[in-house]
Amino acid sequence: MRRSLPAIETLVQGIRSGNRSLLGQAITLVESARPDHQVVAQELIQRLLPEAPAASDTLRIGITGAPGSGKSTFIEALGTQLTESGQKVAVLAIDPSSSLSKGSILGDKTRMERLSTSDLAFIRPSPSGESLGGVARKTRETILLVEAAGYDTVIIETVGVGQSEIAVHSMTDVFLLLLLPGAGDELQGIKRGIVEMADILAVNKADGERIHLANQARAHYVNATHLLPAGPSAWTPRVLVCSAVENTGIKDVWQNILDYKTHVVSNGFFAENRRQQSAYWFKEALHEGLLAAFYSHPAVSETFKRLELEVLAGRISPFAAAAAVLQKWVPRKNSYAI
Amino acid sequence: MRRSLPAIETLVQGIRSGNRSLLGQAITLVESARPDHQVVAQELIQRLLPEAPAASDTLRIGITGAPGSGKSTFIEALGTQLTESGQKVAVLAIDPSSSLSKGSILGDKTRMERLSTSDLAFIRPSPSGESLGGVARKTRETILLVEAAGYDTVIIETVGVGQSEIAVHSMTDVFLLLLLPGAGDELQGIKRGIVEMADILAVNKADGERIHLANQARAHYVNATHLLPAGPSAWTPRVLVCSAVENTGIKDVWQNILDYKTHVVSNGFFAENRRQQSAYWFKEALHEGLLAAFYSHPAVSETFKRLELEVLAGRISPFAAAAAVLQKWVPRKNSYAI
Repeated sequence: MRRSLPAIETLVQGIRSGNRSLLGQAITLVESARPDHQVVAQELIQRLLPEAPAASDTLRIGITGAPGSGKSTFIEALGTQLTESGQKVAVLAIDPSSSLSKGSILGDKTRMERLSTSDLAFIRPSPSGESLGGVARKTRETILLVEAAGYDTVIIETVGVGQSEIAVHSMTDVFLLLLLPGAGDELQGIKRGIVEMADILAVNKADGERIHLANQARAHYVNATHLLPAGPSAWTPRVLVCSAVENTGIKDVWQNILDYKTHVVSNGFFAENRRQQSAYWFKEALHEGLLAAFYSHPAVSETFKRLELEVLAGRISPFAAAAAVLQKWVPRKNSYAI
Repeated sequence: MRRSLPAIETLVQGIRSGNRSLLGQAITLVESARPDHQVVAQELIQRLLPEAPAASDTLRIGITGAPGSGKSTFIEALGTQLTESGQKVAVLAIDPSSSLSKGSILGDKTRMERLSTSDLAFIRPSPSGESLGGVARKTRETILLVEAAGYDTVIIETVGVGQSEIAVHSMTDVFLLLLLPGAGDELQGIKRGIVEMADILAVNKADGERIHLANQARAHYVNATHLLPAGPSAWTPRVLVCSAVENTGIKDVWQNILDYKTHVVSNGFFAENRRQQSAYWFKEALHEGLLAAFYSHPAVSETFKRLELEVLAGRISPFAAAAAVLQKWVPRKNSYAI
C-alpha cells in the first residue's frame, strides 16, 4: 500500500488540473474489484471531497428513453451546445447489460462522434459488473471524480428497462425522459413508474412528417403527467418536443432544465435531495460490502450452495437453512470489500 | 433450551391433530423477536416439514384491492363457501401499517363474523413489525404451520399499496385483485404493476345499480390485461364480476381459481414457482438475519449513526463512510438472529 501513496498524490493533482488520462485511470480504480484498488479509490475520493465544487455549482442530469428514442443523438446535440458555450460536460452511463453485450450503450464513442472530439467533453462507457447495484455504485463514485475534475454538468444515460432508471434517479438532480412521436407509453415499453419519475419529458424526432405525431404524443403526456400527484420537488413536469437530428428544441429543453434547477434550488429541494441521496448511497454501499464479504467467506459459500439444493428439494425450510448458513460465518477482520 | 424440548413435542403433536390453541401459540413463537423463541420456531417448522401435505394438495391465494373494494366481505363469502363444503381455510394478512394502526386489516375478527365462528376456519391478523421484510417473513413461516395443521387453502390478504403486494405475490400460487365498479385503475390507486401480477381480476360490488358500471370496468380490464405480455405461467388473466354482499359470482371466482391451478399444475409452473419462492425466501431470510446481526452490533451502530451525520453534511463520501463502518464489525458467534 505504501507504494501507492505517490500515485494517489499524482492522481489528486492530475484530476484537479483536469488531466483526462489521469481521470480515466482514477475511474478505472473505482471500477476495479481488487481490494487494494478499492482502498486507493476511497482515499482518492476522500482527498478530492473537500475541494469538490459546491453542490449547486454542479448539475447531474439523468436521461432515459426506449430503444430508438434517439438518446445518443440527443445527448450529442445537448452536450455539443453546452461545450460550444464553454461548459465542461461529462457523459456517463449505467447499462447493466453491458457486461454481456460488451457495451451496448456508449461502448462506442463514434456514436457521439462530434461531442467526443471536444476538449470540454468527457465520455465514459458504462462500468461492467454482475449486479446493477455494483454498476450503479461505481457510476455514483465516478460522478464525484468527474466533478472534481471540473465537469460541472454530468449527464448519466441509461436504457429504458426499469431498475436501472431507479438507480440513475437516485444519483441525479433532474430526470429527463425521451419519448417517440405517436406511440403511447405502453407501446414504447416505458413503465408508468418511469413516467412518474420524469421532471422533463421530451418527444424527440419531431421532424418532417412526424411533427404532427410528436404534438399528439405531447398532448397525451401532458394529460398523463397532470394526473400525477405533486412530488416533494413541488414541480409540475414539463412536456416538450424536439429533434436532435435537426437540432431544434434542444435549447428549449436546456432552458427547462435550468428552470427546474432554479425552482428546486430556491425551494430547498435540490440540497435536501442531494443529502438524502448521499444517505441512500451510504446504506447501499454498506449492504453491498457486507453481502460481498459474507458470500466470499468459504464456509458460507459452501454451506449456501449445499443448503440451497435442500431448500429447492423441499427437505429443509428456507428459514432453518438461512439460520444454518448464518452460523457458519465468523468473518475475519479486514475481509470486507466494497 | 433443554426445557423447551417437551414444548416442541407438544406443539408438533398439537398442530398435527389440529389443535387451534397450540397452533396459535406456535405462530406467536414464529412472530416473536426473542432469539430463544426463534430457535424453537425453526425447530418446530423443521419437525413439521417432512409430514407437510404435498405441495399440489394445498393452495395459497393472495388477495389485494384498494380500500373500499370489499376485501373482508369477499374473503368471508369465499371462505364460508369453502368451509360449508367441508374444506379447511386459513386467512392470514400482511399489513405493514398494522403496528401503527394496531391492526387495520383483520385486527378485528368481527369483520369476518360468520367465517370466524366456523371450526374449519382459522383467522390470524397481520404480524406486526418495523419492516415489511420482517412482517412478510413471519407470514411466510406461518403458512407452513397452518398447512401442517391441515388448512389446505390459505388466503393471504394485503392492502393495495405496492410493496406488500410483491411480498404476498412471492408466497402465493395465485394472485387475485379485487376492483371497484366504474373506476379506472388510476382512480382506484392501483399501480399498474399490481394489475400485471394478477392472475384473476374480480370487479366486486356488482349489485343493484352498479351492475352496469361493473361490466364497464370488466371490459376496461379485459382490454388492459390482454395488452400484457404472457408471463411464465402461460395463463391469460381472467376478469370477472361478483358481489360478495349478495353472494353472486363467488362460485365463479372459485372455479376460475381452480382452473388456474389445473393449468399451472399441468404445465409444471405450479411446482417450479414453489421451488423458486423457497429459494427467494432462503435468500431473504439470510440477508435479513445478516443485517439484523450487523446493526445490532454496538460498535457498528455507534459508527453508523456518527458517520451518517458526516455523510449528510458532505464531509465524508458515502463510500468511505461505508468502508469505515464495515471495519468496525467483528461479530461474535451466535450473534445472528433471523
